[in-house]
Parts: sequence; structure tokens; C-alpha cells
Amino acid sequence: MYDTTKPYKKQILELVKQTWETPYISLKEGVVKEKFNYGKYRHVDGIGTKGIYLYEQEYLEGAVIDAMAMNLNDLLMVRATPYEIVDHLFYPEDDKEAILETIGYLVKECKKRDIAITGGETAIHNNMKGLELSITMLGFIKKPELNKFEVGDVLIGVESNGLHSNGFTKVREILGEDYQKYINELIKPTLIYSDSILELIENVEIHGMQHITGGAFTKLKDLLKGCNALITKEHNLEPQEIFKELYGKGISDAEMYKTFNCGIGFVLGAPEYEVDKIISEIKSIKSGVIGRIISGSGKVKIESKFSDKEIKY
Amino acid sequence: MYDTTKPYKKQILELVKQTWETPYISLKEGVVKEKFNYGKYRHVDGIGTKGIYLYEQEYLEGAVIDAMAMNLNDLLMVRATPYEIVDHLFYPEDDKEAILETIGYLVKECKKRDIAITGGETAIHNNMKGLELSITMLGFIKKPELNKFEVGDVLIGVESNGLHSNGFTKVREILGEDYQKYINELIKPTLIYSDSILELIENVEIHGMQHITGGAFTKLKDLLKGCNALITKEHNLEPQEIFKELYGKGISDAEMYKTFNCGIGFVLGAPEYEVDKIISEIKSIKSGVIGRIISGSGKVKIESKFSDKEIKY
Repeated sequence: MYDTTKPYKKQILELVKQTWETPYISLKEGVVKEKFNYGKYRHVDGIGTKGIYLYEQEYLEGAVIDAMAMNLNDLLMVRATPYEIVDHLFYPEDDKEAILETIGYLVKECKKRDIAITGGETAIHNNMKGLELSITMLGFIKKPELNKFEVGDVLIGVESNGLHSNGFTKVREILGEDYQKYINELIKPTLIYSDSILELIENVEIHGMQHITGGAFTKLKDLLKGCNALITKEHNLEPQEIFKELYGKGISDAEMYKTFNCGIGFVLGAPEYEVDKIISEIKSIKSGVIGRIISGSGKVKIESKFSDKEIKY
Repeated sequence: MYDTTKPYKKQILELVKQTWETPYISLKEGVVKEKFNYGKYRHVDGIGTKGIYLYEQEYLEGAVIDAMAMNLNDLLMVRATPYEIVDHLFYPEDDKEAILETIGYLVKECKKRDIAITGGETAIHNNMKGLELSITMLGFIKKPELNKFEVGDVLIGVESNGLHSNGFTKVREILGEDYQKYINELIKPTLIYSDSILELIENVEIHGMQHITGGAFTKLKDLLKGCNALITKEHNLEPQEIFKELYGKGISDAEMYKTFNCGIGFVLGAPEYEVDKIISEIKSIKSGVIGRIISGSGKVKIESKFSDKEIKY
């Protein structure tokens, strides 16, 4: 139940109430009734220290999109359909307008996807620099399937929107006070891949999927059992300018690919005969073949787009 | 699924796995199966700016108890039984030992109460002073009942452990740099009332329950429809020394009772004939009659324990 004891309880309730009747659940008098009977999947994530810049620039819609994206993209990986969220908003000051605006954007993003907001809390944290929006997302899985690459799979990359929500501690370290020059890059919201891919996966054979966030390309290792991933440099997903700038400040190739998405926000592994269909169906976001899966002992090898080096994790 | 991409993923997973089989749910291969079929209740809360002191004193078990208490006590109010949590831990530095210790305490508190930890995230937030532990708690409600006082009800108070987790922004304002003198009071964990009361409510008639947290005694208004609550000063739950100290620094009576629990952490409203039974059953925590419900227009009247004043909200 959305029973924050903080100010704006009534206004917040009026907003979130708009989400209480969906194809999946119905919320009446504080009690949630589910209309489905599948296994459940739980997830939680926030925007991390990117919240410093989003707060500074008062880009509240961006904060909401980021927090939603971090959850939606991770649910996509396990083929889970989101049906409920519970949010915990941390705001550094008691700013009614900003808080209600944030909840308003959250309601908008949830209504779009038939997600109910069934609980939440607003905390004024004046010991914090920046805002944070922690979203716990509840999903269901119609048919559980393994999420792993197979030898022979083609790796398809889907482009990112730049930095997304990870590696910001590193970014601050590198840019220091210089960050204002790059502020527009720092606050760009993470792309939400589930909107274009969640339906697609019901109709094509996909073996493995990975959201390239914290840990970046080292995360592909989780999907490698008895095989290696090879990412070549001859593909159409170029690292955005911001990554080139960061590389230019002296970060190594290995550090780049384990910290940043370097232009690729989501990776799918699928058999050769599904590749054209997948790429043509992910219409709204640019995608392309970036590599393949060969037999091996669970390593990731990447030909850097920044130099002639090859990296191994 | 507990799939934090932060360090200590494997160690954290080993710990939380201990909670994955309970009388209510079972978690296998990332998918949660529920063993019951009731309406659900969702809640989320954290420890707020009390986390500054808990972090400073490295009192991690206290942080866990506080975050659990804020949720458990609120679920109790609506007679919801907790069955799952998803946690989001914000730690100001990458301290492996402290992070694993915190998750260890969380597992301990959850196992005690048959609660499964089905998802979680650990975020290193170096832009934050203090730690925060946000817990999203999922509960079920066997039989939904109204939570409201009735004319003629006797109000029973259950003692608090001191400040609990609310009013810390006010506390910092008042104590300033002097707070070190009171540090032991500032970090005492919130009492968990559900352990002694959740079973009790199945066997006695209780009309209304309120957890005295943010908003303190003004929160009783939520349970008043066509009636007033009167709290007299002749009862056995004295404000602890810390409240007297705060009052002594010049806070008004009205401010005290709307900000702090002033010695009473939980309030129940029940018919006269149930009172003795309730008080004798809440054995482990001191309780007593603190007032009654009379007809009225939804006001709370309190005879201050700090002076001869009477406060109205």
C-alpha cells in the first residue's frame, strides 16, 4: 500500500491510483489480487550516483526512465513480464513540486506498460548529494528458460544511448570538476530495451541475453559455459564520443570494456538463422552482429574499437 | 533474483539462499513459487538519516533491525503476514566485510520469521553520508479488516525503545555537534512489535492499530472517523530521558508529540473487555492503558507528559 507518512501522501496516492487496475493485478482497499498464476521474479535497482547530475539538472523524467530501464532491461534477460513496482524515492530536500513531478513520470512510465505501483515511500535525505530512486520490480515468468549462449550463436548488439547508468564513480574520478563540459552526456537516460524485445522473444529462438550495465562486457561470462564470446571490431555500433573522450583521458582498453557499455547496451545470442529476423524486428533501436560464440572455457575476447588491442576477461 | 552486479555477488548469494525455502514460498532457479493464495500487501521503508549514526558507530545489526522494524510494524497494522523481502543496501564505501556482515544480519532476522530474501542490490554510494537499507516487504492478508478506532475503545500503548527511526532531521537540528553525548540513544534499534502482537490479533478483538513513527501521534487521526482520541497523562509509559533532554532544549509540547514517539511506539484500540488479555499477552514489552476513544470529529487530544499543557491535533 502506498502509505508514505511523509508530506504529499494524498497527492501521491491520487497519482499512483491510476495504475491500480491492469490486465495482471487489481488493487482494492490496500489489497493486491493477482489475475495470473505463474512463477514470480523479483528485482531491484536504482540510478546510483548518476543521481547527482540528474538532480543538479533537475531532469526528473530522466531519473525515472533510468530507474525503470535498469529494472526492465534486467527482467527482459530472464524473460520476465513486469506487473508491479514498489518505489523508494530519496530526495535531498523537501521539494513538493519535484517530488510530485517525479511520481507523475513514474505513473506515466508504468501505465504505458501495465505496471501497477502498489507501494512506495518518499524519504527526504538531506545527507545525500543527488537524488536516488530505488525501484523494486515484480515480474512473472510464463515459461522459465535457461539464459546461456551456445557454441555457434551469433552475438547481436543493440546500441546504447551513451553512458547509461553505470560507471559514474569512475566518470567522476576521470572528469573531476571538468564534468560540466559533458553534462548532457552524463544525464542521458538509459534505453529501455524490453519495449522492443520482450514480445520478440516469444517468436524467435534466442539462447542468451545480457544487459550491459555495471561490470559491462565481463557480465557476458555469466552466460558462458563451455564456450567463449568473441567480439570483433568490424561492426556498426561505434562507441559514442563520450567514450572516446574518456579513453583519451588515459583509461586502458580493458578498463573501458569492463566499466562502460562502449556503445552497446544489450547483447543477444541466437542461432544464425534467426539473426536477420531479430535485427529487422528491433526496428526502433539500431542493432547489428558484433561477434560469435565458439567453444572455450568461459572467456570473453574483445577487439577494442579504441585501438588495435585485443582484450581478454 | 539476487543478482547484484556489484562485488561479493557469490558470497551474498550463499547467505541469502538460506532463506529460499519457507512455509510460504520456495525459490528455485530464480523463480518464486508461492504456497498460499491470499491477497497481497506491499510495503517499503528504510532507516532514513539515522543511518548516519549507525554507520559512524558501525552498528550494522542495528541498521538491519531498524529497517526490518519499520516494515514489520507497518505490516502488523494491517494484519499482513510478511513472506518475502527485496533489499537495496546503500553503503558509502566499498567495504566487503561490512556489506557481508549486514546481509548476514538480514538473513538472521528473516530466517527467524520465515521471510525469504528473493531479490536485492548493493550500491556503493560515495555521495552519501551514512548507510541506508531500503527493504521492500511483501505480505499476505488472510482476512482484510478495517483498521479504525471505535467510540468506547480503550487505547493501549506499547513502550518504545527511545527515538526509534524517526525525527532524526529534527534531532540533528536540535543537538547539532553536541550529538556525540547522546550517541547511544541515537543508535538504539526500533522495537519490533509484530513478534508479540501478530499472533495475538487472531485471538482478540482489536479495532485499530498504529505504529508511532514519522508524524508520531498525529498518525492516530488516520484511524479516527466520527471519533476523537484522548491520551491522558496518568499512564505507565514515561518518555525516556532523551525525550526530556530534547524537550529541555526548547521544543514545544505540540512539536514533541507530532515528531517523536515520546515513549510509546505502538498504539492499539480495543473494547474494554479485551484490555486485560491484550496487556497480559504482550509479555515481553511493557504496555498499558493510555487513553480512550470518544465521539468527535477526528481530533487527537494529548495531555503532555512534559508539562501541564494539553495538545490538540
